[in-house]
Amino acid sequence: MFDLLGADGILGIALVFSIMAMLYALVLFLKIKRIEKGIPRVIEISGYIREGAMAFLSRQYRILTAFVIILFFIIGFAIDFETAGAFAFGAFLSALAGYLGMRGAVASNSRTATSAESSGMNKALDVAFSGGAVMGMAVVGLGLTGLILYYFLGTRLIGLDLDSMTSVLTGFGLGASSIALFGRVGGGIYTKAADVGADLVGKIETGIPEDDPRNPAVIADNVGDNVGDVAGMGADLFESYVGSLISAITLGTLLLGVEGALFPLYLAAAGIIASILGAMTVRTKQADAPHKVLRNGTYVAGGLFLLFALFLTWLYVRNGFFEDYGPLLAIVAGLFVGIVIGLITELYTSHEYKKVKSIAKQSETGHATNIIGGLSIGMESTAIPILLIGVVILVSYQVADLYGIALSAVGMLSTTGMTIAIDAYGPIADNAGGIAEMSNLDNKVRKITDKLDSVGNTTAAIGKGFAIGSAALTSLALFSAFVRAAELDTINIATPEVVVGVLVGAMLPFFFSSLTMSSVGRAASKMIDEVRRQFREIPGIIDKTQKPDYARCVDISTKAALQEMIAPAMLAIASPLLVGFLLGPEALGGLLAGALASGISMAIFMANSGGAWDNAKKYIEEGHHGDMGSFAHKASVTGDTVGDPFKDTSGPSINILIKLMTIISLVFAAIF
Amino acid sequence: MFDLLGADGILGIALVFSIMAMLYALVLFLKIKRIEKGIPRVIEISGYIREGAMAFLSRQYRILTAFVIILFFIIGFAIDFETAGAFAFGAFLSALAGYLGMRGAVASNSRTATSAESSGMNKALDVAFSGGAVMGMAVVGLGLTGLILYYFLGTRLIGLDLDSMTSVLTGFGLGASSIALFGRVGGGIYTKAADVGADLVGKIETGIPEDDPRNPAVIADNVGDNVGDVAGMGADLFESYVGSLISAITLGTLLLGVEGALFPLYLAAAGIIASILGAMTVRTKQADAPHKVLRNGTYVAGGLFLLFALFLTWLYVRNGFFEDYGPLLAIVAGLFVGIVIGLITELYTSHEYKKVKSIAKQSETGHATNIIGGLSIGMESTAIPILLIGVVILVSYQVADLYGIALSAVGMLSTTGMTIAIDAYGPIADNAGGIAEMSNLDNKVRKITDKLDSVGNTTAAIGKGFAIGSAALTSLALFSAFVRAAELDTINIATPEVVVGVLVGAMLPFFFSSLTMSSVGRAASKMIDEVRRQFREIPGIIDKTQKPDYARCVDISTKAALQEMIAPAMLAIASPLLVGFLLGPEALGGLLAGALASGISMAIFMANSGGAWDNAKKYIEEGHHGDMGSFAHKASVTGDTVGDPFKDTSGPSINILIKLMTIISLVFAAIF
Repeated sequence: MFDLLGADGILGIALVFSIMAMLYALVLFLKIKRIEKGIPRVIEISGYIREGAMAFLSRQYRILTAFVIILFFIIGFAIDFETAGAFAFGAFLSALAGYLGMRGAVASNSRTATSAESSGMNKALDVAFSGGAVMGMAVVGLGLTGLILYYFLGTRLIGLDLDSMTSVLTGFGLGASSIALFGRVGGGIYTKAADVGADLVGKIETGIPEDDPRNPAVIADNVGDNVGDVAGMGADLFESYVGSLISAITLGTLLLGVEGALFPLYLAAAGIIASILGAMTVRTKQADAPHKVLRNGTYVAGGLFLLFALFLTWLYVRNGFFEDYGPLLAIVAGLFVGIVIGLITELYTSHEYKKVKSIAKQSETGHATNIIGGLSIGMESTAIPILLIGVVILVSYQVADLYGIALSAVGMLSTTGMTIAIDAYGPIADNAGGIAEMSNLDNKVRKITDKLDSVGNTTAAIGKGFAIGSAALTSLALFSAFVRAAELDTINIATPEVVVGVLVGAMLPFFFSSLTMSSVGRAASKMIDEVRRQFREIPGIIDKTQKPDYARCVDISTKAALQEMIAPAMLAIASPLLVGFLLGPEALGGLLAGALASGISMAIFMANSGGAWDNAKKYIEEGHHGDMGSFAHKASVTGDTVGDPFKDTSGPSINILIKLMTIISLVFAAIF
Repeated sequence: MFDLLGADGILGIALVFSIMAMLYALVLFLKIKRIEKGIPRVIEISGYIREGAMAFLSRQYRILTAFVIILFFIIGFAIDFETAGAFAFGAFLSALAGYLGMRGAVASNSRTATSAESSGMNKALDVAFSGGAVMGMAVVGLGLTGLILYYFLGTRLIGLDLDSMTSVLTGFGLGASSIALFGRVGGGIYTKAADVGADLVGKIETGIPEDDPRNPAVIADNVGDNVGDVAGMGADLFESYVGSLISAITLGTLLLGVEGALFPLYLAAAGIIASILGAMTVRTKQADAPHKVLRNGTYVAGGLFLLFALFLTWLYVRNGFFEDYGPLLAIVAGLFVGIVIGLITELYTSHEYKKVKSIAKQSETGHATNIIGGLSIGMESTAIPILLIGVVILVSYQVADLYGIALSAVGMLSTTGMTIAIDAYGPIADNAGGIAEMSNLDNKVRKITDKLDSVGNTTAAIGKGFAIGSAALTSLALFSAFVRAAELDTINIATPEVVVGVLVGAMLPFFFSSLTMSSVGRAASKMIDEVRRQFREIPGIIDKTQKPDYARCVDISTKAALQEMIAPAMLAIASPLLVGFLLGPEALGGLLAGALASGISMAIFMANSGGAWDNAKKYIEEGHHGDMGSFAHKASVTGDTVGDPFKDTSGPSINILIKLMTIISLVFAAIF
């Protein structure tokens, strides 16, 4: 009844849907732009932030352009220029998504503050969420459009067969991965250098409040929220999104031919529609309890996607492409576990639950017990998510072989548009609060933005859990694709090369985290020196007779982040190539498995320790264990500061480490 | 020229050597006992410590007896009673070694203090080292004697063939492993609960110095040094020692038959003689620079062992059992890497090098930067040791197949007698300092013991690196034995069960560390409450008109340690059995590889972070960055306190986790 074999029709519909996502992003952006920006001071402050963010992005993209050109020729000569072209195209689209998302974010922060003042919580939530949704829709729209276009281009114009096509598409994934690597690592270093510098000198040494305009690092701090938590996070999920699709296309081709390859693209299109509809429900509700509205939006998107997935599977079964509904089960398992990991993350990082409260309690006995408590809870929190991921792998494989694992990743990432929107909303609300503070807006504005920000903290923690879970499944799916591409029948851990690969691989996330943490340390100490210098040399800052030199701090963060992102990036790119060439593809398989295994645990550990410390501090600030300024509070600030690079730099960067290592192995698999 | 085939003769000589080690331990013990104990106050204090340590040991052994009996019957019925008997025998010998070593330690602490007063540094070093050597010689003597006796018993009296014999011997290893698990975990929790309790309330809250007799937890703290750093460490290395021998016997039998099985026993006997001779050089030298004397002793032992190993290999080559000198290369690689890992550990944890100095510098900006610095350095320090272990694996396998990997472990552990002596000397010197302080001995005594103790800190850090390295190689060798025993041709990471195994395995060290860290936290908080209560309710403590209730604190540590050691122990025992039964031996192989890989990194990370924090604090106390009481010093105390459970509880316990999981899999391999 339905001609899927001449599948151009449906693929065309999928393309339309993906373009719709981009149009929706445009609509939202224009809607935001129509909203009043606010009083001159708001415009001024948000202008600083926008300029800082855009300056960082443009300098980062200049470096990335050089990097992409070099790697383009390496890939072109080592493999082929179709793959190299896909690489450049993937990198370009990821960078474009980051740019558009950032535009949305820096346009909506001031307007969120102003809307909060003029119209209250409901409107403020709408603006902030719309700003986040620009990023979300740009990511999924560009990601899916890019894949479908390249697929059309490759199979129709260049006339590649399906196998070559899937191999070329891995280049697209590598492009996305490369941008993600620099985005996450650079953005993570930027944001935490600024944050730590602003906090240590401004809040602790000088005793001025958060977001005080007298703090020279305050603009850099707010820029950091954008480049780290918006652009970095977006690039991370863009990579997972296209990575999961590429692995599903590859493994689907192997198992079922062209229908297997197209199914994930249909699913992604369905996910886009579900996300758009889910996002629309957020706009129209009464926003008394923002977290409920956001959660409902997620459930609507997830529920709709499930219906669409059921329909697509039914079509496939009916047409005989699938034997049974097994693939649906894999998709559902992925989606379900994504949500559950988010909930568990909340359990470990929200101060409504006892884990975080216990850290707050342990802060009473001092800095050290606060740290031990946070480390211990982060380590503990690895258990359930990893067992759940294990169950998903076993179930998905059972029902649809390796294709099932890839489909579970696609399922988990299906509503990425919505997920990113909610994730990116947090830093926008945070920025809005900063702008309100710096512009001396009415106190009620700060109350509204604080409320939105605090919801944003929880959603950010959940988003991090989700990013890790999806990185894990995506990497596993890519790993399976690598095993096929390298034509390995087995990767036998009982051989010494593979054991060595696993050992070294498991070490890499530790070493990589050490690099990113010490990068933050170095960058932060430069920032600390500069902020101290300004307070010393510009005495009028404190009594507001002189202005601090914001631009200098922005510049320091920018330079430090760009400089410090190189070493970790090189480690991620060089390790798999070195092992692949020196010890062969089987040892490389061991390396990937080791890095994946210890990397997921490390990423969960670091993200959740960081989140738990953050909220333990907030819990104390809400009036427990002695409130602000108490001994317990001081101890909790220590935990929060340690947690900053944990949760915003090192932890999330590990996601990219494992994905990039896998996809670079996949791209170069043929020549090892 | 030499009849190795009727090998009873040489094996008899090896048995004589191993008995010599025990006799040497006895000689040292009697020598210590003849030394004057000191003034009544010294006798009183050391009496408290001895009683506390022995009380802990006897209560712990009561629990272990019940555990061993239960597991004896489980193994007996599930496998066979020969293996069950070997299990009980191994457990008994490990416990006995722990008991004897502890007797040596608690006999020599007071005498070290008194000798320092009456005869100076030289004699004090002699006594402390002799006390440690009692443990060292008891471990290797009982370990090797036990293995040889059981080998004779099994092959001659019961008439087992060689294959069954090697399988029975795994039971012996499991026995050693079980005692080690409880010893390391229980001892680690004990010592840190007491330490943290004594420090936080005594030093920080009340402001009395370290080892002040007014501190109610001071005796428990000194007991902790013995049960954790002497008994726990000894049990750990006993396990590695017999584990490496058992795997070498098993893999040697497979490759070369009886000669392959006996070669590691000969090597061990050679190592014992080398260790005894090395230990003797420590006694006779002028002890102005204790660390040089100790290091020379190590080099003498290592050098002699190499000569013996060369001779033995020559014999084997000459008689045609070995084709070439390849096995010697594996042995040398193991020994060499053991030493290099120790040196690298020193590089990362001694305040003579820049890593620790950088943490001290970072302490100037506060608690958080101190913590970030320490964590980052610990993570960085994983890289070189793991790459080196990788090289040893590849080289050893190249020259002598899997047997080579086991031989490299045997090589690394050959001079265990000497290693333990040096390791155990540290806590004895530490105890002697405490006794001197509490007994108001002359200031020069404290100076001598401080000097010895500070050397002990470095040797302890090196010893920890060595313990991790040997645990890694031993586990790998046992893992290879498991692969053979489970009759697995491949453990294919490209299958989902194995991937899940690897993922879950890599998570276990995180979860396990969380358990042990929170155990320390809970136990320490009980101790804190009790110490605070005593200061509150016994007001005469501070002005020395009333005595604190030491026994109560000792009792709290004891109970808490025994109670808290259960959960981590069950995790270690249950996980491999569960995965083995539910997902099969291949997935279990994945679990072991994952746990091994992330466990080694975790153990190195935690041990070195802890060591680096400790010495950063000491560096500041030596007069840098503001000295005692400065802001930097306070921050460094935080790092040191976080580092305590890192380096003395969680980190070392991971060694046991990975060894025990592997050996339990090996014992039960046949029935999965």
